[in-house]
This record gives sequence, C-alpha cells and structure tokens, in this order.
Amino acid sequence: MRNVSVTGLGMTRFGKHESSLKSLALAACREALLDAGRPKVDAIYVGNFLGGQLAGQEIMGSILARELGLGSIPAAKTEGACASGGIAFRQAYQMVAAGIYNTVLVVGVEKMTHAPTSLVTQAINSAMDNDSNEGVSGLTFPGFFGVVANRYMYEYGAGKEHLAMVALKNREYAMNNPKAQFRKETTLEEIMQAHPVTAPLGLFHCSPITDGAAAVVITAGDQGIKVIASGQASGPPLMQDIPDLLSIGAIRESARQAYERAGLGPDDIDVVELHDCFAMTEILAIEDLGFFEKGSGWKAIENGLTKHGGKVPVNTSGGLLSRGHPIGATGVSQIVQIVSQLRGTSVNQVERARIGLAQNLGGTGAYSIVHIFEGKGM
Amino acid sequence: MRNVSVTGLGMTRFGKHESSLKSLALAACREALLDAGRPKVDAIYVGNFLGGQLAGQEIMGSILARELGLGSIPAAKTEGACASGGIAFRQAYQMVAAGIYNTVLVVGVEKMTHAPTSLVTQAINSAMDNDSNEGVSGLTFPGFFGVVANRYMYEYGAGKEHLAMVALKNREYAMNNPKAQFRKETTLEEIMQAHPVTAPLGLFHCSPITDGAAAVVITAGDQGIKVIASGQASGPPLMQDIPDLLSIGAIRESARQAYERAGLGPDDIDVVELHDCFAMTEILAIEDLGFFEKGSGWKAIENGLTKHGGKVPVNTSGGLLSRGHPIGATGVSQIVQIVSQLRGTSVNQVERARIGLAQNLGGTGAYSIVHIFEGKGM
Repeated sequence: MRNVSVTGLGMTRFGKHESSLKSLALAACREALLDAGRPKVDAIYVGNFLGGQLAGQEIMGSILARELGLGSIPAAKTEGACASGGIAFRQAYQMVAAGIYNTVLVVGVEKMTHAPTSLVTQAINSAMDNDSNEGVSGLTFPGFFGVVANRYMYEYGAGKEHLAMVALKNREYAMNNPKAQFRKETTLEEIMQAHPVTAPLGLFHCSPITDGAAAVVITAGDQGIKVIASGQASGPPLMQDIPDLLSIGAIRESARQAYERAGLGPDDIDVVELHDCFAMTEILAIEDLGFFEKGSGWKAIENGLTKHGGKVPVNTSGGLLSRGHPIGATGVSQIVQIVSQLRGTSVNQVERARIGLAQNLGGTGAYSIVHIFEGKGM
Repeated sequence: MRNVSVTGLGMTRFGKHESSLKSLALAACREALLDAGRPKVDAIYVGNFLGGQLAGQEIMGSILARELGLGSIPAAKTEGACASGGIAFRQAYQMVAAGIYNTVLVVGVEKMTHAPTSLVTQAINSAMDNDSNEGVSGLTFPGFFGVVANRYMYEYGAGKEHLAMVALKNREYAMNNPKAQFRKETTLEEIMQAHPVTAPLGLFHCSPITDGAAAVVITAGDQGIKVIASGQASGPPLMQDIPDLLSIGAIRESARQAYERAGLGPDDIDVVELHDCFAMTEILAIEDLGFFEKGSGWKAIENGLTKHGGKVPVNTSGGLLSRGHPIGATGVSQIVQIVSQLRGTSVNQVERARIGLAQNLGGTGAYSIVHIFEGKGM
C-alpha cells in the first residue's frame, strides 16, 4: 500500500441554501481542486444519501465529472445512510493506496431544507430495515436515541444536564465557525428548557435538517496531511438485534481496525470529529472510540475533558448538532475539519495537533467508518 | 495486482415479484454463496438505483451483512443509474485485485413493479441532469433513444425491421432462459406492429419494468472464471452536450480500457452481454464495442452475425429487452450470464466460449462499464 495524503479541501457553508444539489457539490469540488493546485484527477466518488428521494437527482458522479471538465474519468456514488460521505472517502483512499488511481476527488453533498419535514423524516427512515416492524411502528432516529439516553441515565447516573453540556460545547465551537449552521450564543438553561423532541432529547440535542457539501482531494504521496488508517464495520440495523443499547458495536470495531492499522491508540489522538447526530450519540462515541471508560463519558464531559485543554477536543467544527448535518456531506466535512486542524489553519485550532480522527456513523449503528490522519504538529 | 476470479453465481427470476427488495437480494446472495462453497466473505457491495425512491429502503449493505450472518464486515451501496450493478462489481474486483479484501460478495437488486408507472418514470428521470431543461421539458429515456433511432435510420439506411430483428433475437434467446421476464414466442410482424412508445421504438424495443436480483462472489486466485479486465468511463449526461448522437463515447472509452488491459481486441471475444435498454442501444453498442464498423451494425444484425454461428452471440440471456431490467441488478446479471457461458453451463450455451465481455450503461451514456472474463473454453 502506498502513502496517501489529503491535498485539497473545499466546503460550502452548511445551512439553508437556494442552490441545487449539483451547485452545492460543484462549489465544494471547485474549492478543493483549487486548494490542491488543480491536479489531474483520475476518479470521483460522491457520498450522498437522499439525492433521489429529496432532490430527484442521481448520477452525481457523472454530472460532476462533466461540469468540472475532468473528462471521461470513472465516477460513482456511494450510499450508507449518514455514513455515505465516510464510505466515499474510504473507497477513494483504498484505490489510491492500492495504486489504482493517483488522485481522487471525494465530495459529500445533501439538499434537504427545501422538502417538507414530514417527507424528510420519511426519507431518513429509509436508513432503517423497513421489512421489520420498527419503522412502520413509528420508531424514528430521535426516538431510538431518546430510548438510549433514558437507559444511559438510568444505568450510569448521568443527568439531562450532561446531554445539554454536549450541545453547549458544540454550539460554542460553532460560534467561531463561519461555515456552521447555528452560531447564535446559547446557555445551558436555554438548552435544557427547549422544546422536547423525544424526551430526554430536546431541540438542541438533535442534529438539524441542512443543505451543504464538502470535498477533499486525495493523492499518492506525503505532500499533504497523511491518511494513516481506515476502519469500517457494519452493525445490526434493527434495535431488537442490538445486544447492548449503550454501546455501538460498529464504532468499536471500526476504531479497533483503524488503531491497529495506524499502530496507535486513543491516547495518541489530538483532535476528533465524531458523529453527534444526537447529544447522546456523542457520549456513546467518546466511550466506544476508547477515549473514556464505558459509562464514564458523561463525567468526562462534566469535567471539560472533550474541550480545548482537556484530554481530547471533540467536534471543534461544532459537530452535527451545530455545524449541521447535510447527511451525505457530513463524513467528508468531518475530514475537512480534521485536516484543517492538522494543517494548523482551523477554526478552534488545537495547538500542535498532530494526529486526528474522524468517525462517521450510518443509521443507529448499521455502519461506522473511522479514519486517522497525521500532520506535522505545527 | 492479483488474479481475481468469479466463484459463485446467484440470480432470482426476473419479472414481477411480491417479495421485498431485501428478500430478492437475500435470495440471490444465498445462492451465490452456496455456489461458491460458503467462503468467508470480507466485504459486500450492493448495486442499486431506486431503493430509496421506489422501495423506501436504503442501507442494503448493512442489512445484507446482518441477515446473511457475515458479521461486521464493511458494506456499501454504489449508484450510477442503470450502471449501478456494474460499478458495484468493479469496486469489488479492484479491492480484491489490490489485495485489500480476499473475497467479496456483489449483489445488484431492484424492486419496481409495485410502483405506479408514472412514479417509476419520474424516478428513472433522476438519471438525467435535472438542473438542465431536458428532463423538465419532457425528455425521457425512450424519447432520447427514439431520436437516436430516427437519426441512425436517416444516416445509415437502416429500417424499422432492424430494430425489430434485435428485439426478436433477444426474445428468442429469452425463450430458453427460465430466469427471463418475457418468454412468449413472437414474430417480426408482431414486434413491428406493436404499440409505439416513442416512434420508431415500440413496446418490444423498450426494456420493461422489472423486479429481481443477481449476485456473484469474487475471490483472489484462479479457481473460477477469471476477471481479466475492467474499464469504466463517464460521458455527458445531457443530450445537448453529446457531440455525436450515433456513438456513445463512454462505451468506446470503457471498451478501449478493457481491451488494452486484457491485451485483447473485439475479435477475441466469444460471447457478449451488452446494455440493450432499447433495441437501438444494442445497435450502437455492437459498433462502439468494436465488433462492427460504425453505421454497419444494422447490417450485421440482418446477416445474423450477433447470433450463434455469427461473429459474436450478443445477449444470450435475452438481454434487458426480454430477460428484463431490474435496474440495479442488470449489470450483475450480465456477469452471471457471461460467467455461466464461460463455465459451459449456460442457457443458449456458446460452444467452447473462452472469452466473454459484459457492458453496462448508465443514463444515455453518463456511465459505461466493461468487464472481460476468461474461462477454459469448455
């Protein structure tokens, strides 16, 4: 396997856009190609989940190859629900590492805000196994993570305030990020008193409906921020099949693979972007990624260990909760943030960050993808 | 790059099914895994186009990993409209060739017949670039290939009977294929007098709405039918950008790559499955794949050169026109047919077939994928 590095980054503002799915993707791609010095591109991978259902638009790979003037290069879309972007990046990374392509453009994109909320909820539920009774019985993703949060609080003694602390931290990071969807200052009290969605999760504990795109260029060699490991695992798509509601097996397994391949462990990681689709999910993820013992994540949050100056700053972009969650774009936008941190040019820069980790989840744990990156620690 | 071979095949009957998207995919996968001797599988790729839009079902990769008891292996769906299955196979082939995985399960699947035809037509149009005026102005895929057929007849002197000869040949092959959607005997006259869809294309010249799934297992080594080359190219997704309506650039380029990598040319190919989404498309494809000179495909068909005993038998499965076209499954089902031919166990067996080619198209030429396979010529 050859060395692979990220040499170009591009990203639209996340939030509400009038632009089409295609326009959003193009904007992010153009910025990434410019940032990479306009290299010759050998292939495109597009991470997208709801283009067909919400925007009536598929074949994004071919459309982008054409519009960007990249010629007849191979292109494809990958889908794995909210992990679609991470999966796209992984394909591209593996192809470059294997010597099949030298330079690949990866873009994640989603357009959601134009559609009625009921339609968006229905479309998102296509990330369940709908041959089962769970979706048709009314289970939704907020419902699932609401159940998990209640169980977590019961088992480990955490309180609603710990969920609120996650949301507040991510909002405080987002306030410095001009690309984030939500940048308004808030308080712990406002978060705790906000409209409930699925108790104990309220409005600030749930990632929003968002439009946006993020793109990266990856290339053989060491001239950028190195990709040093990729891990991917699948897990049960049904709640009834999950052996332990308080641990996401796919996160643990994808992290195990990535740490093993990188020859590193959780203590080596300087900065993390992880999949906080709900505040509860961030607490599970910091445990399942190995940063804190199982059941102790809420204490780590209480003690500020996931902020600057703590053990490991988490979601310095604002996370899905406040940066926003344009589903297919999320996995790529996490990588944009981690690479920016390792370049030393990020919002909420972590000083001398050298090793970064990005973790992208699909469904309630149907997919998890972990990538580890290495910079020079500037 | 390591040698790669296909060691397992599975396929449902193509046609109308009551089963779900998931059930269809599972049936094909189980058959392929059994046929391959139940190997340890390292990853799954799913080719699917309309699961979200027509079946409300995504995350098929994870669902199949779970239901098949394959553990937490990486999984993903790939999309490239009607080329989704061919793209899935290509990812799997490249990963095995590169040594990233040893054994990969590839499945293509689509469930279409339960949806109203107007909804199916609208969903299929997500394979156009809908930021343009073409789709909203009423252009459909039958409309596009109807225009092409008129132009082809005008330029080269072909007649409607040549389109009918393609449809008749493929129906005659399908009559021997128990997996095919349409097996009823027909005549040139019936085909020419059938209900027009977009003149000169009538009912028999257009691929149908179909449910079905096809799966293959691919493995490192030479123990099965070898995959000796893969080619993939993108082309303009818009009619207005196509320099020559009578040639599909992506087919030419994907074939060029595959022939070059295999060290072979069109004259070396013993049997072909190609993407006859319309009878007209088969005529273009036999020219663009290099079997016949540009503008002469209709004469080759008239002279029986694409049947048993001719230069190269084409679509011995019955093709998209009569075997059926469950969109995401098509690319994989073509490979099932070619591998069966090279095993010497196919319907409409071509005697001592040793080299086979499968070509899968997406959109009107937005994607084309070509794979070449080698057997022992039994």
